Amino acid sequence: MVVDSRDRVRAAAVKLFADKGFHGTGIRDLAQAAKLSSASLYHYMGTKEELLADIMRESLERLLAAAALATEGVEDPRLRLGKLVALHVITHASQPSETRVVDNEVHALSPAARKTIVGLRDSYELLWSEVIDAGIDAGVFHTGQPAVTRRALLEMCSGVARWYSPRGTLTLDQLAAHYAELVMRALGCLDVGEQPDLKHCRTLVSQVWSVRI
Amino acid sequence: MVVDSRDRVRAAAVKLFADKGFHGTGIRDLAQAAKLSSASLYHYMGTKEELLADIMRESLERLLAAAALATEGVEDPRLRLGKLVALHVITHASQPSETRVVDNEVHALSPAARKTIVGLRDSYELLWSEVIDAGIDAGVFHTGQPAVTRRALLEMCSGVARWYSPRGTLTLDQLAAHYAELVMRALGCLDVGEQPDLKHCRTLVSQVWSVRI
Repeated sequence: MVVDSRDRVRAAAVKLFADKGFHGTGIRDLAQAAKLSSASLYHYMGTKEELLADIMRESLERLLAAAALATEGVEDPRLRLGKLVALHVITHASQPSETRVVDNEVHALSPAARKTIVGLRDSYELLWSEVIDAGIDAGVFHTGQPAVTRRALLEMCSGVARWYSPRGTLTLDQLAAHYAELVMRALGCLDVGEQPDLKHCRTLVSQVWSVRI
Repeated sequence: MVVDSRDRVRAAAVKLFADKGFHGTGIRDLAQAAKLSSASLYHYMGTKEELLADIMRESLERLLAAAALATEGVEDPRLRLGKLVALHVITHASQPSETRVVDNEVHALSPAARKTIVGLRDSYELLWSEVIDAGIDAGVFHTGQPAVTRRALLEMCSGVARWYSPRGTLTLDQLAAHYAELVMRALGCLDVGEQPDLKHCRTLVSQVWSVRI
């Protein structure tokens, strides 16, 4: 029962923060969406900002966990990056509210919480930097601006959280495969080598988010 | 004097809507930032939503105007797209608040205002669709998913509004040139042909936004 109410508050917060922004979400909105009184809401959460920081931390830890599981022991930078792209796209397309909160609301955090969240985000982006650098060293990726390219590709892949609909014509696997192709091309990689196992990527995302996708 | 206060209200709204979101911006925030009393604020604006719709409409009209000026009479789809990318990236990097409001706050509009704004956005995206389709027909662009590719590339280019800093190592022209290269590669275009005149693109953006960049 307690767990249930906590889950309801968290789910309501994710949806409201994604749709109206952190600053646009009042305590009364949260209480109403979680079907609780404003007074009892505080039994199930700390401050609104703690709730935001928790949602962001958990989302980033899930992205990191899936990335670690998928790339463990994979040496080829093309396959490593292909898996990171597939996981990122599948996650952003299937968990659009959570990922939009992570992408849009960092400015709303206090300095202390921001340090933790930005640290996790940096760890995640470092995985992308490392594999892009490894591919350049191996002569399979070609770019004069690795840092700018990483940012550009991450923005491109995160963008699916804004427009992808599971009711459209593209399955998650088709979407992930198309983005992996765009990323390889953008890095000047003409021989893409072994392709990521998309079903396995989807399973990993399902596992770390505890959802069926 | 009146014009001055109107401009101050508009500039304050752009900054606040970009940083805190439309729903997170109160009338008192606006009045304070524009250095007006809440009562006198209403002399210089209609509703908060009319202000939002005006900002979005004007930004989109400026994007459309620059695109029309830059591509008039240009036949080669590679050069047309190169110019659209350069204008889009220069605009988003130099006007990050205005463009973030356009990209993030469509959900905050009423149905009537949304229809106008989405119509303008669709007209702008149609320019990208048409040139991508023309490039495919001409055999210079290659993609099995033109609509998804257009969305991916637009998200990638719009993303500069989130991270580009003029205090960094990259000039606007270098940024625009790098993104034009990423876009051509993503479209499988190996022979890019004539390059867009970036100085001219910058001048057009300066003109339609009435700013020095």
